Amino acid sequence: MDHAIPLGITGAAAAAGLKPSGKADLGLLLSDRPCAWAALQTRNRFEGANLVLNRERLESGGPLRAIVVHAGQANACTGAEGLAVARATAEAAAAACGVDAASVLVGSTGVIGVLPDIGKLRAGLAAIKVSGLSEAGVLEVGKAMMTTDLVPKSAARELVLGGRAIRILGMTKGSGMIHPSMATMLAWTMTDAPVAQEDLRRVWPRVVDRSFHALTVDGDTSTSDIAAVLANGAAGGGALAGADLDAFESALAEACADLARQIARDGEGATRLLVVRTSEAASEADARRVSMAIARSSLVKTAIFGRDPNWGRIAAAVGVADARYEPADVTIRIGGTVVFASGRPAPFDRPAVQEYLRGGDEVLVEVSLGAGGREGTVWSCDLTDGYIRINADYTT
Amino acid sequence: MDHAIPLGITGAAAAAGLKPSGKADLGLLLSDRPCAWAALQTRNRFEGANLVLNRERLESGGPLRAIVVHAGQANACTGAEGLAVARATAEAAAAACGVDAASVLVGSTGVIGVLPDIGKLRAGLAAIKVSGLSEAGVLEVGKAMMTTDLVPKSAARELVLGGRAIRILGMTKGSGMIHPSMATMLAWTMTDAPVAQEDLRRVWPRVVDRSFHALTVDGDTSTSDIAAVLANGAAGGGALAGADLDAFESALAEACADLARQIARDGEGATRLLVVRTSEAASEADARRVSMAIARSSLVKTAIFGRDPNWGRIAAAVGVADARYEPADVTIRIGGTVVFASGRPAPFDRPAVQEYLRGGDEVLVEVSLGAGGREGTVWSCDLTDGYIRINADYTT
Repeated sequence: MDHAIPLGITGAAAAAGLKPSGKADLGLLLSDRPCAWAALQTRNRFEGANLVLNRERLESGGPLRAIVVHAGQANACTGAEGLAVARATAEAAAAACGVDAASVLVGSTGVIGVLPDIGKLRAGLAAIKVSGLSEAGVLEVGKAMMTTDLVPKSAARELVLGGRAIRILGMTKGSGMIHPSMATMLAWTMTDAPVAQEDLRRVWPRVVDRSFHALTVDGDTSTSDIAAVLANGAAGGGALAGADLDAFESALAEACADLARQIARDGEGATRLLVVRTSEAASEADARRVSMAIARSSLVKTAIFGRDPNWGRIAAAVGVADARYEPADVTIRIGGTVVFASGRPAPFDRPAVQEYLRGGDEVLVEVSLGAGGREGTVWSCDLTDGYIRINADYTT
Repeated sequence: MDHAIPLGITGAAAAAGLKPSGKADLGLLLSDRPCAWAALQTRNRFEGANLVLNRERLESGGPLRAIVVHAGQANACTGAEGLAVARATAEAAAAACGVDAASVLVGSTGVIGVLPDIGKLRAGLAAIKVSGLSEAGVLEVGKAMMTTDLVPKSAARELVLGGRAIRILGMTKGSGMIHPSMATMLAWTMTDAPVAQEDLRRVWPRVVDRSFHALTVDGDTSTSDIAAVLANGAAGGGALAGADLDAFESALAEACADLARQIARDGEGATRLLVVRTSEAASEADARRVSMAIARSSLVKTAIFGRDPNWGRIAAAVGVADARYEPADVTIRIGGTVVFASGRPAPFDRPAVQEYLRGGDEVLVEVSLGAGGREGTVWSCDLTDGYIRINADYTT
């Protein structure tokens, strides 16, 4: 990946011995100046210990300087000991970077209910030091936070606003336990654009609704999810406003939607990216609920794996979504081919649709509700014996 | 199965050529006298054509005499043609039984979006005739309505109320697309008890809430679900009331819970019945929502398949349920062994719990919320590569 790194951002990764594989499992990101920021965290009641810590920082509203993330153990459901580890991790990262611990956000992913070894975390962070951070190290952090992910995931956008170039870079991890009721696993998005914190906190929920919230792999919601955006203003100039702020939001949304697609494509055991687009809805929320009902259906997802244009399962999934429409007005398309319309099966070229399902690595399901003009897309993947194997064998 | 058939009930099954396998696919149940009845049907907006017909009968409130059920094609999403087939099926069944078509309920299951062949249905029903119906034929109907079910499912209770014996017999089918938002696939329950229709319609939703609603295989809700109860009063005496009616409700609830367990045990590809019992809840609804969140979690279900006491996935599922509790008050048990308590991992004998998971064909997960005195159980099954194979290969 040949991404432009936002100005003032450096990073590093290390193998701290938290993953049994011995691979990189610790990452550190640093901004050379304070960042305005926003973050959404899991709505799961059993939130990770680090999220409790992060919530304090969110509520204080102070600027951020660094993110530390570790993989292997999720540090969730670990009680007071877990919170102590999270605090000590922030402190060790702060010491490595020479910043205040209150300006450090902590991400954690891996097996739930196992305490990460704070000794290993401290040793890993002490070894990194500020001198170990570099532009090239930023994308290494994306690799260090992988668990069942097969590939690291990043997306970038560059745009010129008010005569200056700004850069947006996002990195995410996630492959299973993906059904955000807030945000999907870990997503760090950084920009050198100057954005006021109040603007960032207004924009971020809208962006997440259209990206990480529009994503499901298995309907399970993690204890450790966090999606954060940091803006350090290193590109220079005054805070974005008006049309520039709108353009920034669009670029940010594009980058995050790109990341969400990458998570779905790398869904545990997946062989196909499943894109579900609902249009002609009475509201964007209706459209997303219909898309999500289809995207999370085990029967739709196994039919895609079977390369089977079994549209009845799609209709059944639409039928349980909370949305305004009349069944007789609904049209269903697979890969652009109408398979159901006007309340009855539409004759279609079955071999051609099967060929479409066999051919690419992406399947498009479209539903028109005939109830309005809004639309919403959700990304998912097929459900395969690979998913079963990964999750039956993934040991606590 | 050595079940006592309620007095006055006969049945028959036939192979009408609707299933490609050539197996029995058509069933007919007849009461020799009018029945009080109640039924819950799918809340899926794409309801089967026969359910539209049944709704007319439900709303008219007239007595029932017969049930006709056919498998192979679900007659859902089939438009006006489907409704015509449903009406013609009821008429053909009425002719075979010598009753009025308005007293016939129609059940349909199989592939969605394919019209059943009315010629085959008519020929099959004409071949049955009243003379073909028998007590022994009743349980044959349970076999005729199987699709991906491996075994037919029935449950019976006998009790003495007010000095007379009464019999309750239930039959059900269902294995996949099981996540009732009303009732699971097809469930026919019959009794010779004398029960007033208004009592039956008051009791039935409560019974279904604790049985067919407390069941999930894959989180998918069918277009064709119906759970009906018929009472023909052939056991004699006046309508049940007071303590007798309560005893009848309890026995009916037991029989239906038995059927729900049988569906979960026969879940597509399942190797284990998963019983999730939540206690110490503030309400029964809270308890059932927590149990359901666990029971529908793909990650919990794959962990059970992997014989892995991965309780973190159970905690994560609890954490997304809409229920009142404090995480620190929650206790989680697997097969009776405490694995999580007081907000942190509980030390436990992992080999012993793994042995428990490997040993039987039933796994008990218990959650105590520490928030009250109510409880609720949900039945499910593990998620296996068998489920994937069945549903990737099940052709439209």
